[in-house]
Amino acid sequence: MSDFTSAQHEDVKALRRLVGRRSARSEAGLCVVEGSKVVAEALHAGADITRLFVAGDYWDEVVEQLTSTKCVVRRLAGGVLEGILDTVSPQPVVALVASPIQASLDVLGSLSSATPFVVVGVDIRDPGNAGTMIRSAELAGASAVIFLGTSVDVSSPKVVRSSAGALFHVPVIQRDDTLNTLRSLQSFGYRVVGTAVHGTAVDYCSHGALSGRVAVVLGNEARGVDSETASVVDGFVTIAMVGRTESLNVSMAATVLCFEAARQRSIQR
Amino acid sequence: MSDFTSAQHEDVKALRRLVGRRSARSEAGLCVVEGSKVVAEALHAGADITRLFVAGDYWDEVVEQLTSTKCVVRRLAGGVLEGILDTVSPQPVVALVASPIQASLDVLGSLSSATPFVVVGVDIRDPGNAGTMIRSAELAGASAVIFLGTSVDVSSPKVVRSSAGALFHVPVIQRDDTLNTLRSLQSFGYRVVGTAVHGTAVDYCSHGALSGRVAVVLGNEARGVDSETASVVDGFVTIAMVGRTESLNVSMAATVLCFEAARQRSIQR
Repeated sequence: MSDFTSAQHEDVKALRRLVGRRSARSEAGLCVVEGSKVVAEALHAGADITRLFVAGDYWDEVVEQLTSTKCVVRRLAGGVLEGILDTVSPQPVVALVASPIQASLDVLGSLSSATPFVVVGVDIRDPGNAGTMIRSAELAGASAVIFLGTSVDVSSPKVVRSSAGALFHVPVIQRDDTLNTLRSLQSFGYRVVGTAVHGTAVDYCSHGALSGRVAVVLGNEARGVDSETASVVDGFVTIAMVGRTESLNVSMAATVLCFEAARQRSIQR
Repeated sequence: MSDFTSAQHEDVKALRRLVGRRSARSEAGLCVVEGSKVVAEALHAGADITRLFVAGDYWDEVVEQLTSTKCVVRRLAGGVLEGILDTVSPQPVVALVASPIQASLDVLGSLSSATPFVVVGVDIRDPGNAGTMIRSAELAGASAVIFLGTSVDVSSPKVVRSSAGALFHVPVIQRDDTLNTLRSLQSFGYRVVGTAVHGTAVDYCSHGALSGRVAVVLGNEARGVDSETASVVDGFVTIAMVGRTESLNVSMAATVLCFEAARQRSIQR
């Protein structure tokens, strides 16, 4: 147990690049997954785990399980992993996993649900918000989550972490071209519904507001749904708020909308 | 503008104690409010702001507004405020505000709503969760938020920050005695409803699940509603989840429940 992989080893240098650089993750088709709980989610989902980095002599069930597979396990001396990870409380287990993030919309053509709902984030900048959106969408039964425009790279360690591994259980798509993608959704029969804080939007709870084949679009943290996106959507919903503080943040709004979409589906059954 | 209050000044030393120590906040009846946005919420709510600390020559509308009141404004040299605050990105404006946190349940006797809903957190340990619960509850129109048992001190700077100032707009109560408080709620005519991940609980969306005079109880992050608390509640609701990842965290669950409680009220109107 005392033969630690050197910090100069090619695999460790690769890990450092993959943690820090979107281009490195994109070229390798990998994402960095921190913590045994989230690695276990990837494992259960059947994701391809290529490398496991373990701090010192740390040992748990996930490490044991992966040691008996073709996954290469690298043990690093104390402090090496902590130096690479960008977290307040670094995890003793980090895996490189084939990225589940897709660029193609093809998956939307083969959904089992007749009335799928899809969550779309446009220009979502905060990794915690992006991760929470994926987590809530998956828990509520969304068929896919799509990030568009200048959204944060969804394969980044922070997004993977805050999704609690949900991105291994629901299709996640990332693309730049917001307007074309929304038009494609419409051509696939989706009603594309924007979210608005005020204005002439329909109450999100009202009959049929989120039912049927629907894509719910959430906008940037500061600006909301921008005017270009607004020009494409089929309509708007709003979450009526009686409180006096500033509105829900985007991930809380997404959570409320996802569970309401699930409710509207369950009462139709 | 160059006469900065010394870091040894009694007010600065008091700020340091108030940031770090629950007992200091409790004795002084004060909470520490960081950032102009949240200070503005306190101001709009008519809270008593006794001291304002400002970094260097920083100036904005809130500073200007408070300078013309009886609030004492102390300007601190660069780095002093950053050294005191427990944040990654310290704010240039920090206020001492009379704590809005109450120990008494009296406020529940004078609510305007005939069918109030109240959110109860038992043993909520994470300040971010506690703050988000207050924020969602206020936005959804809850009549009060109550923290019980070993919950985090709600007057702590982190809770105030993550509530986005909502604790100045909705009554927030903190008490130790969980069981007595829940029994008091029952004696005031509240149906006390626990939340469960699994089991024989009622679907939270089902007819009447969250309507009427109701107190929704959320439990500790790791353990959920404990068995002692469970022995007192009138029933349980659950949020059905179709996803495969671990369940919603407590603040997301609280958000979903608050907005569903609001929906059930709106359709009864």
